[in-house]
Amino acid sequence: MLVKEIKELRSLIKAWKREGFTVGFVPTMGSLHEGHESLIKKAVSENDKVVVSVFVNPTQFGPNEDYDSYPRDIDKDLTLCMNAGASVVFNPISKEMYFDNKSTGVSVSGLTSVLCGAKRPGHFDGVCLVVSKFLNIVTPDKAYFGQKDAQQVAVIKRMVRDLNIDVEIVTCPIIREEDGLAKSSRNIYLSDEERKAALVLSRSLSLARKEIKNREKSVGKIRNIIKKEITKEPLAKIDYVEIVDSESLENVENIEKSVLVAIAVFIGKIRLIDNFIF
Amino acid sequence: MLVKEIKELRSLIKAWKREGFTVGFVPTMGSLHEGHESLIKKAVSENDKVVVSVFVNPTQFGPNEDYDSYPRDIDKDLTLCMNAGASVVFNPISKEMYFDNKSTGVSVSGLTSVLCGAKRPGHFDGVCLVVSKFLNIVTPDKAYFGQKDAQQVAVIKRMVRDLNIDVEIVTCPIIREEDGLAKSSRNIYLSDEERKAALVLSRSLSLARKEIKNREKSVGKIRNIIKKEITKEPLAKIDYVEIVDSESLENVENIEKSVLVAIAVFIGKIRLIDNFIF
Repeated sequence: MLVKEIKELRSLIKAWKREGFTVGFVPTMGSLHEGHESLIKKAVSENDKVVVSVFVNPTQFGPNEDYDSYPRDIDKDLTLCMNAGASVVFNPISKEMYFDNKSTGVSVSGLTSVLCGAKRPGHFDGVCLVVSKFLNIVTPDKAYFGQKDAQQVAVIKRMVRDLNIDVEIVTCPIIREEDGLAKSSRNIYLSDEERKAALVLSRSLSLARKEIKNREKSVGKIRNIIKKEITKEPLAKIDYVEIVDSESLENVENIEKSVLVAIAVFIGKIRLIDNFIF
Repeated sequence: MLVKEIKELRSLIKAWKREGFTVGFVPTMGSLHEGHESLIKKAVSENDKVVVSVFVNPTQFGPNEDYDSYPRDIDKDLTLCMNAGASVVFNPISKEMYFDNKSTGVSVSGLTSVLCGAKRPGHFDGVCLVVSKFLNIVTPDKAYFGQKDAQQVAVIKRMVRDLNIDVEIVTCPIIREEDGLAKSSRNIYLSDEERKAALVLSRSLSLARKEIKNREKSVGKIRNIIKKEITKEPLAKIDYVEIVDSESLENVENIEKSVLVAIAVFIGKIRLIDNFIF
């Protein structure tokens, strides 16, 4: 079922809650792939009702980013959601989400100034704003996010903790193509040649994981292994290669507790990200 | 009933909601007077259950403000709340409200850069943060604020609208002493002489209201009437005298639609505020 109005969604959810149903929520920007599908299926398995939002959120795109060209296909998304067992697809119109004189900002400091945040100023402010709005509209018991956007997960978890939002954040593993490329809505932009080159992301991370498993503790050495592998690929240009504390996203020098190994790489003009937590 | 732990309050409220009870919420910094009492009684008259929070919120005090010396008397507050019909007084400890590594901020721009916001940088960020936390903890149907803090009401309403927080904000009129002085927790700091001098706030606003009723449209003239009256009082020092749009808090030149006439005046070292909406 497709819902476009906040009011309609709210009354639907209130009726569910009166019946005692639990509500799961999967926020997306649409252009859904098997990664999103895995989130929806997980939510369906854990909740009585599941809301999937499909909203290309303007406030999380920078002025030179791909808001206008970001892929949109609501009919295809709706089919995927319904087949995966979602109860409602919420596809709000931008005008109802953001008033012309909107004045309120939600931001997480520290965690947002590194990794993708350092490269995309304002991006996580936009994410925090839209996610807090959605959480207030949907009031879910659990909300599902993909580990692919590892920094987003860390930021949202911090925001939920700091603002006492009564929701459990569930993180789901990265879903990959058979050859290892992490699923992404932006993969469709890749030419055949770039598609092959893009494998350098997962390949370099695999090498790093192997080294860490072999008890290599030096963050500097692991980072160099990744950088060296990426540099071999002529179509690839490193945006960042970082190894940080998986919760605070602060730099670490040695691998002692849980770390996030996260990379962002341009393949031609397309910026791709990948990561693992060890 | 006094509750100190967030977890305990949450489970109490969830039990109420399962029973179908409506919940009213009155956020306060304690040191309760008849102004707060009127909010609580209004909440009691409109809801099945009423939560009053008593929390001197450190994040809304500036470094040179009176956080440490702000009056606190939880026993007296508890008695007042219970007598007024409140169900629960929520008196959280600061450590449970704010983690050492708290990173999340909520802020409203525009409306907070004028009036008290111009004089108290960061004050409304602190208010927005704590109110959003409380609204997420209490999840009330209605929340009650005093018109005395007119700018706070405008800021909270904007935040609630922009973040889609599902609560109705109810504004209650200013409660005054018999001689006109607006009730305030800070009034107890006034010496006898200052107490008399403090009447200049309500007196100057009465003069202004009379002029506006007499169809005076010029904001400049009204402002001068107020300033002139306050200046007559030797113990008084004007902090601001402003006449603004009552919703956007933007400056207006002529009184055409609903305006907020708001003043802040130092009486000795004590800063007092008062206002009316016309």
